[in-house]
Amino acid sequence: MKIKYELIKNDGRARFGKLITNHGTFETPMFMPVGTLANVKMLTPEELKEAHSAVILSNTYHLWLRPGEDVVAKAGGLHKFMNYDGPILTDSGGFQVFSLAKNKEKDITEEGVHFKSHIDGRPLFLTPELSMEIQNKLDSDIAMSFDECIPYPATYEYAKKSTERTLRWAKRGKEAFNNENQSLFGIVQGGEYSDLRKFSAEETVKLGFDGYSIGGTSVGEDKPTMYKMIDDAIKYLPIDKPRYLMGVGEPVDLLEGVERGVDMFDCVLPTRIARHANAFTYHGKINLRNAKYKEDFTPIDECDCYTCKHYTKAYIRHLFVANEGLGGRLLSIHNIRFLIRMMEDMRTAIKDDRFLEYKDEFLKKYLGSDVNSK
Amino acid sequence: MKIKYELIKNDGRARFGKLITNHGTFETPMFMPVGTLANVKMLTPEELKEAHSAVILSNTYHLWLRPGEDVVAKAGGLHKFMNYDGPILTDSGGFQVFSLAKNKEKDITEEGVHFKSHIDGRPLFLTPELSMEIQNKLDSDIAMSFDECIPYPATYEYAKKSTERTLRWAKRGKEAFNNENQSLFGIVQGGEYSDLRKFSAEETVKLGFDGYSIGGTSVGEDKPTMYKMIDDAIKYLPIDKPRYLMGVGEPVDLLEGVERGVDMFDCVLPTRIARHANAFTYHGKINLRNAKYKEDFTPIDECDCYTCKHYTKAYIRHLFVANEGLGGRLLSIHNIRFLIRMMEDMRTAIKDDRFLEYKDEFLKKYLGSDVNSK
Repeated sequence: MKIKYELIKNDGRARFGKLITNHGTFETPMFMPVGTLANVKMLTPEELKEAHSAVILSNTYHLWLRPGEDVVAKAGGLHKFMNYDGPILTDSGGFQVFSLAKNKEKDITEEGVHFKSHIDGRPLFLTPELSMEIQNKLDSDIAMSFDECIPYPATYEYAKKSTERTLRWAKRGKEAFNNENQSLFGIVQGGEYSDLRKFSAEETVKLGFDGYSIGGTSVGEDKPTMYKMIDDAIKYLPIDKPRYLMGVGEPVDLLEGVERGVDMFDCVLPTRIARHANAFTYHGKINLRNAKYKEDFTPIDECDCYTCKHYTKAYIRHLFVANEGLGGRLLSIHNIRFLIRMMEDMRTAIKDDRFLEYKDEFLKKYLGSDVNSK
Repeated sequence: MKIKYELIKNDGRARFGKLITNHGTFETPMFMPVGTLANVKMLTPEELKEAHSAVILSNTYHLWLRPGEDVVAKAGGLHKFMNYDGPILTDSGGFQVFSLAKNKEKDITEEGVHFKSHIDGRPLFLTPELSMEIQNKLDSDIAMSFDECIPYPATYEYAKKSTERTLRWAKRGKEAFNNENQSLFGIVQGGEYSDLRKFSAEETVKLGFDGYSIGGTSVGEDKPTMYKMIDDAIKYLPIDKPRYLMGVGEPVDLLEGVERGVDMFDCVLPTRIARHANAFTYHGKINLRNAKYKEDFTPIDECDCYTCKHYTKAYIRHLFVANEGLGGRLLSIHNIRFLIRMMEDMRTAIKDDRFLEYKDEFLKKYLGSDVNSK
C-alpha cells in the first residue's frame, strides 16, 4: 500500500495533517530523527518511541556500503533488520554524493554519478535505477528520487542544466521503481533561482509522485535565501500530497518551514550536537561542558523526556568531562524530544489558529537570551 | 544502618545467602558490574535492572578526580548523583594506584602513596584517612579499606612488609571512618605466600569489619596460583560476613570462586569486552565482527536479555563494522545479563545441592567448543 496524506486544517499556509503508512500513522508537521546506518546513533527504537518520535530517516548511500542492501533484504527489510516497526523514509544517496565525495573525484554524467567511497576510496557509480533498486530492497516506507544537490552558489547555467537532468533522473527512477508497498517522492531542485524552482516543481509534479521534497537547501546559503527557496518551490506543489524539506532541523528553520506549508523535516542536528554536549532548551542552546553546570543539580529544561526526568546538568556535565558515552546518549534523547515536542506544539497552534503567535512566543524565549553568557 | 549478611545454605564450601543493605537486598553469590565514573559505561540504571543486576561497584579514585567527592556529596551522594537507587560498593583507590600510576612515579610511604594523576600528571597523595573521607562523602553502601595491591611476582620480604602496612592502614582507615549508614570491608593481601595470606586474614578479621575482600589476585598470576590465593585467605574468614573477590569476572573464575565460598565479585570484563565486540555465550566467547555473522539473523545466544530478544548477530556485527556505539551498548547489556544469570544458576545449584554438577555442565559447554573456529 502507498502512503496516504490527509490535510486536516490550515492556519495561513501552515498545515496540520496526517500521514498513513504501512507502519503506522503520524501527524504532520513532523520532525524525523536520522538513523544513518540503520540506527539513530546510540539509541534504541524504544527510546525513540518514548520521545514520541514517529518516523525516522535512514541513508541509502550508507546502507549501500554497509552492510549492503542485500543483507538488509535477506533480514526481511530495514524494519526487521534494525528492529524498528515504525515508518522509515530513505533518501536517495544524492545528498551524500554532494556532501561526502570530493569534487575532483566526482563525475556527474547523464547516466549517473561516478565518485569514490568515503570509507575506502573505491570507485562507485550511482544511477537513478540503482538508487531505486537499493531503496526497493531496503523496503522503507518512503523512498526518494535520485537527484543532484546543486551547490550554493551556482551559476544560472549550471543550476538549469542540473535541474533538467534531475528531472530526467526522476523520470527514470520512477520507471525503474518496483515495490508496491513503498511510496516515492519527487525532489524539487533549482538552486537559488526562482524560475528554476518553479520549473522544477511543476515538471516534477507532472511526473506524479506520492509526495514532494524540497532539496538543495542548507548548503551554505543565508537564511532569507533558504526561505525564498522554500517559497519558490512550495507554491507549485499539490495540497493533497506531503511536502518534505530535506536536511533541515534548526528550531528557527522548523518554524519558518511549517509557516510556509512544510509537513516533514529531517536532520542529524539533534543527535550530532548532543554528542558534542550541546542541548536545546527553550531559552536557546547550551553546552553542558560549561563549568557553571558543575554543581547545577537541576534538569536541562522543563521537559518531559527521560533525561530531564532523571538526570541533572551536573551529572551530564560530569559524563562529558569524563568522556562517558552515556552523556551523548542522554542528550540525544533530550534533543530529539525537544524537536518532536516543538512539532507537537506547532500542530496544536495550527489547530488553534495561532501558529504565528506560537512562533513569536517561541522565538522570543529561544533567541531572546543567551543562556551560556548569563 | 550497616549491611547484614545471612548465610542461608552451604553446598560444600559454596554459599547461598543474602545481603541486606540500605538500598535493597540481594542474594549471593552475586556479580557486580563496574560503574567506574558513576555510570556503567553506556548503560542506564533501568537497563541494569532489566538485566537483573542488583548491585554495582564504582571507583573512588576516579570519582575523586572527576567530578570530585564534594560535587557528589552536594548532589546528595552517589546514588542521587547517578540516579541509581540500588546498592553501591566503592573500592578504596588502592587498586588504581597499583594499575594506573607508573612505578617510577609512585612512592609508597607509611603515611600513604604519592603518585601522579593518570589524567594530567599532577601529584596526588592518597592515605587511608583520605580514602575513607572520600568514600564517606560518596556515601556508597559498602566502602573498602585502603590497601596496597601487591604486584605478582613479589619477593617474600616485600609481600610481608606490604601486608603489614596494609594492616596498619586498615586500622587507621577504620578509626577515621565516619558514616553510620555505610559499611566497611577489610581487605586480605599477602601476595602468593600462604602464611602471609593467613596472617593477613586473621589480623584483618581481628580488626573487625562488616565484610572481607580478597585482594591482590588477577594481577598476572596463573589460574592455580589465583585459586590458591583464595584458598589461603578464605578459610580464615568468618562465616557470618560476606566475602568479596575483587576484580574477578571471567566465567571460569566465578565458578572457582563460588566453589571456594566467595559471595561477591566485580569486574569491568563484561562491559570492556563488549565495546570490543566480544560476547559471552554458553558455548564460549565470540567476536561479533567475525565475517561469518554477516548474514546470521539469529540472536547471540539462548538468552533472555533485551539484546537477544530484539537483535540479530548480523545487525550487531553491522553496528560494529560501521563503528556505531549502539553495538557496544547492546553487547554490554548481554554480557552483564550473562554473568548475572550465571550467578542465578549457581545460586539455584547451591540450593539444590548440585553446585559441582552445574559447574561441570557449564564448563563442558563453555570450554568444550571454540565457537569462532566452527
